[in-house]
Amino acid sequence: MRKARIAYGGAIHEAIEWEGLLKLDDDRIVEENNVTWLTPIEPRTVFALGLNYADHAAELAFAAPSEPLVFLKGPNTFIGHQAYTRRPADVTYMHYECELAVIIGKTARNVKKEDAYKYVKGYSVANDYAIRDYLENYYRPNLRVKNRDTCTPFGPWIVDVKDIVDPMNLKLTTHVNNELVQEGTTADMIFDIPSIIAYLSSFMTLSENDVILTGTPKGSVDTTVGDIVITEVEGIGRLVNTIIGDESFTNR
Amino acid sequence: MRKARIAYGGAIHEAIEWEGLLKLDDDRIVEENNVTWLTPIEPRTVFALGLNYADHAAELAFAAPSEPLVFLKGPNTFIGHQAYTRRPADVTYMHYECELAVIIGKTARNVKKEDAYKYVKGYSVANDYAIRDYLENYYRPNLRVKNRDTCTPFGPWIVDVKDIVDPMNLKLTTHVNNELVQEGTTADMIFDIPSIIAYLSSFMTLSENDVILTGTPKGSVDTTVGDIVITEVEGIGRLVNTIIGDESFTNR
Repeated sequence: MRKARIAYGGAIHEAIEWEGLLKLDDDRIVEENNVTWLTPIEPRTVFALGLNYADHAAELAFAAPSEPLVFLKGPNTFIGHQAYTRRPADVTYMHYECELAVIIGKTARNVKKEDAYKYVKGYSVANDYAIRDYLENYYRPNLRVKNRDTCTPFGPWIVDVKDIVDPMNLKLTTHVNNELVQEGTTADMIFDIPSIIAYLSSFMTLSENDVILTGTPKGSVDTTVGDIVITEVEGIGRLVNTIIGDESFTNR
Repeated sequence: MRKARIAYGGAIHEAIEWEGLLKLDDDRIVEENNVTWLTPIEPRTVFALGLNYADHAAELAFAAPSEPLVFLKGPNTFIGHQAYTRRPADVTYMHYECELAVIIGKTARNVKKEDAYKYVKGYSVANDYAIRDYLENYYRPNLRVKNRDTCTPFGPWIVDVKDIVDPMNLKLTTHVNNELVQEGTTADMIFDIPSIIAYLSSFMTLSENDVILTGTPKGSVDTTVGDIVITEVEGIGRLVNTIIGDESFTNR
């Protein structure tokens, strides 16, 4: 089951995929382009992994981490599917980052790896844009890099955990203006999903709707105003985002 | 005006100080020890400053930062006045950190320093405990250090911005078991409140109930199970916290 959270007709609804259309929780059928897509859940704490694909760490000339490198992200940065991300005029590098998002389903504390998936509600896709201008020579990125408004598209759907047989073997791709620019597989994660959940829950409590952004493979490069950026995770979703400039963002 | 948020009689109330007692929003008068103190607001994004007092940076043998070092904190870590903080049995160093908390009152974007206080709703006190075992040799601390459950007491009150003539000249003190162990003044901040608000709002949007923990002066040392730790900011509040061990935390 794939579920979206959308705004339509003056209210927020849950919706499911229905023959290429959306079926709302009140049984109305609407077209995907006639709704405002919101993030599939309202995130509580959002954890993001740095350098969790060995090829990406090598590309940045950083050593692969020996334990998960995790930072938090604030609510200002999240937007839904088909929305607009603002590229600040005063930055030089804004890289897309296709990521598998893991959504926690219930309170988790001291979880063993073999039990980790019992605490997962489902999966989604994120594009965790990085403003590389400000990336410093150590691992946890600062807020100028990773916490800009609208810089984390997230969606379209949450896909039920039961529907994904092997989340550690999914293809990730990014297309910019229909050209394939990033390709990888979740099989290349340094810390897999059970390891991340075991790690985080070993020293803190995870709660429903906490989100883990699991990192991006190599191939993340610059984007520019006007680009249509599609990040896709096999079987999970295809997240469409358009980059606009300060001027059109403000006057839209 | 000082306002608290408390639980009493099966519901959450706003309360004000009233002749040494609390007056609830429904006019009931109750004793301070007969309520459960919650955090004075429900924090949205929480920003914490690292090394924002020069004496504390020197004490840790880190260079003072050239721009604010900011990290985010998640909701699992906050508790109210008079509550219990869990000291994990497997850590060696758990340091208190007395801090002035600044609570944002309205949406803020590209704020000039001279306008910064217009965006402040009020002030409170925080104790931003650090598990020093995991502090690495660079600035933004990892989640094992700064994001443990119950490790950020926050309260008791929010004090209205208008009631504090000069927030940049307030004494901070920490007492452990009635002994004075930390003393400083907000005058020694490297980045003052207007600078921090101008900095953060220059590249992202701040919102109502975002909280800025402004850093701690020198004198932060280890605490142990059974300690009663009181962090106080002059004119803002006196925040009482008790440290308990894993065993009594779990079985309480």
